[in-house]
Amino acid sequence: MIDAAIISTGDELVTGRTTDTNAGFIADKLLGLGVDVVGILTVGDRPERLRWAWTEACKLAHVVIATGGLGPTADDLTTETVGALFGRALAADPAIVERIRELFRLFNRPMPENNLKQALIPAGAVVLPNPLGTAPGYRLEVGDPGDPRHVVVLPGVPREMKPMLTDTVLPWLATLAGAGRIGYRTFQTFGISESGLDEVIAGIPGEGRWSFRANFPEVSVRVTVRGEQVEARLDAFAREVYARLGDHVYGEGDTSMELVVGELLRARGLTLALAESCTGGQVAHRLTNVPGSSAYFLGGINAYANTAKETLLGVPAALLAAHGAVSEEVAATMAEGARRALGAAVAVGVTGIAGPDGGTAEKPVGLVCFGLAAEGVPTVARRYQLWGNREWVKLLASQIALDWVRRHVLGLPLLELGRRGAAPARPQRESVGPG
Amino acid sequence: MIDAAIISTGDELVTGRTTDTNAGFIADKLLGLGVDVVGILTVGDRPERLRWAWTEACKLAHVVIATGGLGPTADDLTTETVGALFGRALAADPAIVERIRELFRLFNRPMPENNLKQALIPAGAVVLPNPLGTAPGYRLEVGDPGDPRHVVVLPGVPREMKPMLTDTVLPWLATLAGAGRIGYRTFQTFGISESGLDEVIAGIPGEGRWSFRANFPEVSVRVTVRGEQVEARLDAFAREVYARLGDHVYGEGDTSMELVVGELLRARGLTLALAESCTGGQVAHRLTNVPGSSAYFLGGINAYANTAKETLLGVPAALLAAHGAVSEEVAATMAEGARRALGAAVAVGVTGIAGPDGGTAEKPVGLVCFGLAAEGVPTVARRYQLWGNREWVKLLASQIALDWVRRHVLGLPLLELGRRGAAPARPQRESVGPG
Repeated sequence: MIDAAIISTGDELVTGRTTDTNAGFIADKLLGLGVDVVGILTVGDRPERLRWAWTEACKLAHVVIATGGLGPTADDLTTETVGALFGRALAADPAIVERIRELFRLFNRPMPENNLKQALIPAGAVVLPNPLGTAPGYRLEVGDPGDPRHVVVLPGVPREMKPMLTDTVLPWLATLAGAGRIGYRTFQTFGISESGLDEVIAGIPGEGRWSFRANFPEVSVRVTVRGEQVEARLDAFAREVYARLGDHVYGEGDTSMELVVGELLRARGLTLALAESCTGGQVAHRLTNVPGSSAYFLGGINAYANTAKETLLGVPAALLAAHGAVSEEVAATMAEGARRALGAAVAVGVTGIAGPDGGTAEKPVGLVCFGLAAEGVPTVARRYQLWGNREWVKLLASQIALDWVRRHVLGLPLLELGRRGAAPARPQRESVGPG
Repeated sequence: MIDAAIISTGDELVTGRTTDTNAGFIADKLLGLGVDVVGILTVGDRPERLRWAWTEACKLAHVVIATGGLGPTADDLTTETVGALFGRALAADPAIVERIRELFRLFNRPMPENNLKQALIPAGAVVLPNPLGTAPGYRLEVGDPGDPRHVVVLPGVPREMKPMLTDTVLPWLATLAGAGRIGYRTFQTFGISESGLDEVIAGIPGEGRWSFRANFPEVSVRVTVRGEQVEARLDAFAREVYARLGDHVYGEGDTSMELVVGELLRARGLTLALAESCTGGQVAHRLTNVPGSSAYFLGGINAYANTAKETLLGVPAALLAAHGAVSEEVAATMAEGARRALGAAVAVGVTGIAGPDGGTAEKPVGLVCFGLAAEGVPTVARRYQLWGNREWVKLLASQIALDWVRRHVLGLPLLELGRRGAAPARPQRESVGPG
């Protein structure tokens, strides 16, 4: 097993102007290859800090992956630092010079001379092409030839860095890590906690290595296998995962609940309408983040005030008075009202108490009721006691609303929450409050 | 000027499961006190990595602020590491033990014995209370008494860490940094680019230090002053900022456009309704993220399909045919329809092409039309050509919709976009592609 250290460079990272998403992206991909990330070193654009970071990173690990500090301006110092620290002369790579000139011609812009700084590469480095920008990356073997350090330098702009890492660095690293015999698969789950998943999965035979990633209110599970017949073994694992986790797995790989729901609706030619109260438009917002969602999403009514529930969704005032706005009866009537008003095949209604105010002993903060109305089947409704602050209650409620649509379309049973091991994981594992 | 290093601890950070937002939050606040963050060291929950991080951090800077590793389980090693490295015995703090027991009683849960681990504190440490969780933080002076290191340990859960930093650590650090003679003020702006802001602000007399933080689609500006009469000088700066940036400054400090809009509506007793098409519920979602928004937000209609615009908002089919769904005429009629349907004082309509498909030569992707209808004034409508991917167009359009409400309530002119220096900044500054 090889190890790696990550260096993130840039004043914007140590002043809090920008959140570093590069390091996490790289760490996640490396984990997929079985490479252990031992540390992330983040420094600003200053020579002495960069020297510290590079020196320590090479002590910590055999592979160093660095992002940032490759721009054209004087404060971009990564290549200078690498050259000086490892005793490599810098020289302009003619192919890169030509490519930079060509890019500026293409965009019809004069090229400031300092842009040629980006063509400087340390002697002995292998250039890593950057299809989306002027700064290429490179990799270099340094130190004792008997126990070398492999350093990789990439631009800091995530849009440029990510495809370079995935397309060029990872295949090389897989070879270096003795892979080609490593494979992984990722499953997206909802409605079951990390510990619940762990229990189920621990029982699956085989020597695959599992890892979990909680991203409230979901948990993704990745299995990594090494050795012979990687694909066949991953297929066997996947069959077991579906057999044991059943309806809690909603997709594989880079997907999202709103994407999966959209694909299901599109494939079956169904249209969807919404009646949102406590989620306040978040379900619609998530659905319409998916390009092409107008093919199946007709619209929704955010009936925040009770009068809006009456006039726009046809919820009788007597029903509101008898059961309260947060009730299964009202959620069901909201769903039916939205379906009728928008002429949709399926409609979901959501009403609840997002907090922090508005809770009572009988109906505490976090109580959310859902209704689903659809062509040719009886309307269903149900209540869940959710938890967390306003943001969490809204997010979890919007996820449940989407999951209800998925389960309806697939003919799966209603979501169960609150059984042992069946609650969505909390986002931070370190959260220690008993609340 | 004192310097600081930040340590972020947790396996979830070096495996890419969680993005570290703590370090950036801390760095931003420290910058506000004039404290220079020289590096961020991120390691997993392993003893040898933690020893490395703590040793190096104490070499790098005079103040070390660490988050994470304070949980109740065996893999939480921060306090053990600090105790061993600096030769301090650990002892359970009786007040903390009592508080943990009380929290579990309050939530009616049995307390696992390992939770008492969180009461262990190194000898000589000052306890920093955690109002939102069981793990307190602490600070400690270590090393050579003539040139001590000040170390601060906080929990890793952002919801717990942030108020502890702001309420307890920053006031102490301001004293340590020789402050009382340092002050800062932050202005939130929308509708003007970072370079546009820079130009305007450079002309303000005085020796204040400016910094910008772009958080698409907004830019915040912070001025820091040192020396004598800090408050009076900040007031003078603020007057100049308002005189020169006028209606582009929407608030000060930790606020958001939806919060400011909500406060304005509440203060004047106005109610709001929405008619959203391309923003697909995002405006409503943002408004309802604010606790208590039901006092002024009545609801909205997400009229994604044209038939929904007709039936729910009363947009005539002839108007849609004549001008198209994305037109100022339809935006105005949507706003009027929402105001009528919900009985609101003010209503905004938004219709546009979020992309990536659906654009034409005449109406390209990013074209978004807005309408505002209000009691006793003529309805106004206007189009803007926005940019970026679907997510950006939606976000920018939802921001404009909120800003329209703000400007309406305050009697300010309509937002201008596209003038020199008047475009919201793009998120990455390091982007080096000529495109």
